Amino acid sequence: MSEITQLFQYNTLGALMAGLYEGTMTIGELLKHGDLGIGTLDSIDGELIVLDGKAYQAKGDKTIVELTDDIKVPYAAVVPHQAEVVFKQKFTVSDKELEDRIESYFDGQNLFRSIKITGKFPKMHVRMIPRAKSGTKFVEVSQNQPEYTEENIKGTIVGIWTPEMFHGVSVAGYHLHFISEDFTFGGHVLDFIIDNGTVEIGAIDQLNQSFPVQDRKFLFADLDIEALKKDIDVAE
Amino acid sequence: MSEITQLFQYNTLGALMAGLYEGTMTIGELLKHGDLGIGTLDSIDGELIVLDGKAYQAKGDKTIVELTDDIKVPYAAVVPHQAEVVFKQKFTVSDKELEDRIESYFDGQNLFRSIKITGKFPKMHVRMIPRAKSGTKFVEVSQNQPEYTEENIKGTIVGIWTPEMFHGVSVAGYHLHFISEDFTFGGHVLDFIIDNGTVEIGAIDQLNQSFPVQDRKFLFADLDIEALKKDIDVAE
Repeated sequence: MSEITQLFQYNTLGALMAGLYEGTMTIGELLKHGDLGIGTLDSIDGELIVLDGKAYQAKGDKTIVELTDDIKVPYAAVVPHQAEVVFKQKFTVSDKELEDRIESYFDGQNLFRSIKITGKFPKMHVRMIPRAKSGTKFVEVSQNQPEYTEENIKGTIVGIWTPEMFHGVSVAGYHLHFISEDFTFGGHVLDFIIDNGTVEIGAIDQLNQSFPVQDRKFLFADLDIEALKKDIDVAE
Repeated sequence: MSEITQLFQYNTLGALMAGLYEGTMTIGELLKHGDLGIGTLDSIDGELIVLDGKAYQAKGDKTIVELTDDIKVPYAAVVPHQAEVVFKQKFTVSDKELEDRIESYFDGQNLFRSIKITGKFPKMHVRMIPRAKSGTKFVEVSQNQPEYTEENIKGTIVGIWTPEMFHGVSVAGYHLHFISEDFTFGGHVLDFIIDNGTVEIGAIDQLNQSFPVQDRKFLFADLDIEALKKDIDVAE
């Protein structure tokens, strides 16, 4: 068998939904586990985008900063992305149409995948989760989130596709973040139109699910799993 | 931080419930990842017990065999067990009473744990899932499973405690298998009474969730996740 590709997930999306926003893993440690991925920052201060081994923060004020190794995150998922399928998208499609095409290349629906889409987007609609205090539910914070739409923008979408069995641990289906080619615009992808671009689908063999084992708030959190899954449906 | 303890799970309990019984990982490979654990065999031919780095099969005809490295399993979970909490149980309790006591030592309900209970059991009630063809649902097979009760038997219970968020991937709560001190009796634990014994609770930092990535039947299986979770509630 070829080399094993491992998706590294730090904490669960469910725990984040519950309001556990304190950053407990450094970007330096996170980037040891992958070069492409998504997540959020301490106090859910915007969206984390990991592209080509570098980490960026898309903040609610519509700015982007590159993150240093000492910055901490409460939740992230990264992978050493290796394209298994690459295809060119040569005509205009919506996000849903492109996602259907991407899934048509999957060998079934039971494995995680990494996704990288580089191209020209007539429309890119994103949100940045705004900074909030731990304990405020994510789904409530997301009701008042800044959203922005840019037109005719070049850039890259990065993210993870999760099989349904892992909903709660992650979000079933696509979890995609965007960053523009000039690193001035980005966020959590809500919807988009793509004109042309290159789509890479990466194979993932294993999930390495890591936990904040020294965070008392996480350890003793009383998580209502079914409610958190519904919150993920709404907020992600 | 001390060394990281990783729970290695091969395939998911949900996929097993769906009738994917073909063995695809060897015992030799499995034992590289842990010395204590549970699982089942190819064609769900009985219960897998991993104790002190050796693998045993408890078959439906009430026999036990030690497994060689070339035998294949469709599902298993093993861990390099390291006791974090050890306590003596010095008076007679039921399984439920002992489980309550064990959980009282947990730091919260959000991490996996390994469990090892060595002692003298006035009652040990186990089942062995009987050999079945792939495609037959596990919950149906389990309706006609051999069950045995032994009295005043010495031995060891091994297993995993799973946080609720991972129900479906595994079974939430306890998944325990038993093997007698003389290696003549064992199976999937249904209930028991313990007179006295030693209980070890192991800390688990990460879940390494592995998939049968070269098994076409798994890759293309149409898994009804909510139904499978209910099947786990009934069968496990």
